[in-house]
Amino acid sequence: MYTIDKLRELIETELSKHEYLSEPRELFKPLQYILEGQGKRLRPLLVLMTYNMYNESVEDILTSAIGLEIFHNYTLLHDDVMDNARMRRGKLTVHNKWNTNVAILSGDAAAIVAYQFVLKCKDKYLREVITSFNNVAMDVCKGQQLDMQFETREDVSTDEYLRMIYLKTAVLIGGAIRHGAILGGANKEEHKALYDFGCNIGVAFQLQDDYLDVYGDPTKFGKKIGGDILTNKKTYMLIKTYKLADKETREELEFWMRKKSPDPQEKIKAITNIYNKVGIKEHVFDIINSYLESGYDILKSIKVDEDKKTNFYNIISLLKDRKS
Amino acid sequence: MYTIDKLRELIETELSKHEYLSEPRELFKPLQYILEGQGKRLRPLLVLMTYNMYNESVEDILTSAIGLEIFHNYTLLHDDVMDNARMRRGKLTVHNKWNTNVAILSGDAAAIVAYQFVLKCKDKYLREVITSFNNVAMDVCKGQQLDMQFETREDVSTDEYLRMIYLKTAVLIGGAIRHGAILGGANKEEHKALYDFGCNIGVAFQLQDDYLDVYGDPTKFGKKIGGDILTNKKTYMLIKTYKLADKETREELEFWMRKKSPDPQEKIKAITNIYNKVGIKEHVFDIINSYLESGYDILKSIKVDEDKKTNFYNIISLLKDRKS
Repeated sequence: MYTIDKLRELIETELSKHEYLSEPRELFKPLQYILEGQGKRLRPLLVLMTYNMYNESVEDILTSAIGLEIFHNYTLLHDDVMDNARMRRGKLTVHNKWNTNVAILSGDAAAIVAYQFVLKCKDKYLREVITSFNNVAMDVCKGQQLDMQFETREDVSTDEYLRMIYLKTAVLIGGAIRHGAILGGANKEEHKALYDFGCNIGVAFQLQDDYLDVYGDPTKFGKKIGGDILTNKKTYMLIKTYKLADKETREELEFWMRKKSPDPQEKIKAITNIYNKVGIKEHVFDIINSYLESGYDILKSIKVDEDKKTNFYNIISLLKDRKS
Repeated sequence: MYTIDKLRELIETELSKHEYLSEPRELFKPLQYILEGQGKRLRPLLVLMTYNMYNESVEDILTSAIGLEIFHNYTLLHDDVMDNARMRRGKLTVHNKWNTNVAILSGDAAAIVAYQFVLKCKDKYLREVITSFNNVAMDVCKGQQLDMQFETREDVSTDEYLRMIYLKTAVLIGGAIRHGAILGGANKEEHKALYDFGCNIGVAFQLQDDYLDVYGDPTKFGKKIGGDILTNKKTYMLIKTYKLADKETREELEFWMRKKSPDPQEKIKAITNIYNKVGIKEHVFDIINSYLESGYDILKSIKVDEDKKTNFYNIISLLKDRKS
């Protein structure tokens, strides 16, 4: 079985092979630029890890696996335009470095590259692979749509928020794992179980990201601390805090959310204090752990040698401990 | 064999079935809006016409065929943002009616719907269908990229222009025809020949569109006459006129192209006069006819009963006569 480090190395080598990609160069440069941003490569990693539970020859499916990394980066190109994000992984976003048209069109091209790569698989798996990928891609769009709609809504519930991150983030984690399962020759029941497993850890992963946006260690967390607070993003933390808070605290929260041009550090500090006051940390840990436990239970139930699941158990442990 | 009118009717019925599409409605409304814009449905029509040369059961492939219409409309959604177009088929463009984010995201969703629909085909054709579609989609992106690059270049040649419209427009016409051929069970040689046939009439079609943008009958042509002239679009007509013109005429052309905030009607009239002076009409007719003749020769060579090709021969005749 491959170690995670070894798989990541294979992914980087494969990505560097494709010299993004053909003419006209201008169409593919932004994709190359964003791919060089050293993401975690989580999605192709999960494809390979899952495949590797069933099969040793991970090299055979490398191109298909990095198709999911390219898909993920395509969504980032377009999301950054829609969110008007200035920076991504410490670099200027594509629409800032070039312009919006470049981000739109190179994103469109990247989506097609993703399809081309993902479908490099044995013919006998093609229908399942394309159906899985299409469904995931559509859910990601739906999640982004809900995310944008929530910006202008005041009454988003925690359930709605969880549904949104399920679609926008978790389904692609689940989809990556299902992709590896299909290519590895797992049966349909296992596809389903592994997908559900992935969706559970995907939701946990996003909830942690939201948590780290407030409580993360600035030297470790890739983004600036407090970004969600400054944009009044209706995360699980914010919605839940609003519900937990007493009248006075709720008014204080609303004050900071409505304040025009607040001092950023002051606003972050004030809202973090409110989070502390209602004890949001424990609530977030509880829900993260419940998703991780559901994931753990599903993983346990899958009929594959326990030692083949080592990488996944390690990931669950890592996620459990990822609190700074 | 089905008539073109009957096929168009089937396409409209199929399109109206899908109630675009599921939740969240906001994601699909813009697609429905642009599809209601009564396009020519040329691409699914060509799929069905080609399929119908080999097979009577066109209903079996209707969903797959309208996948290409949806793909075409997805490209329009994004192109209109990139070109900052205000109107499309007499209606406000999506980014004007809603906003840019809506056009980007509903376009992204439409692209995935296109994949979902296109792939509704027999498993034995899936690999060929997806490969064909991916290649076409990528070429369309490349064509759009070149189109945008040409905006800021002074030295675009007629060959480069023809290459650009080949990628941006013709390949999708050829791809639609190849799609019908694959699903109809034609052999690989025929796929290739029919694709080339389609690309030839596709280039002719775009050259005619450029011609009609200047010389079209305003009551018949869907867009405002002179749009390309006002934006200094480097069409075949403009590039060729520049080459044909004497020094004085060329200077006049440059004067109008550089003039800041000209009176639109005055500029259209002046440049149309220059086109008339160099006799551009004959040059455009010549090149259109040469593409149509190449198309005709390929169609003739295809080993299918001549009477099955009637619809296509009619289309070539229609295109030959489409001069106002």
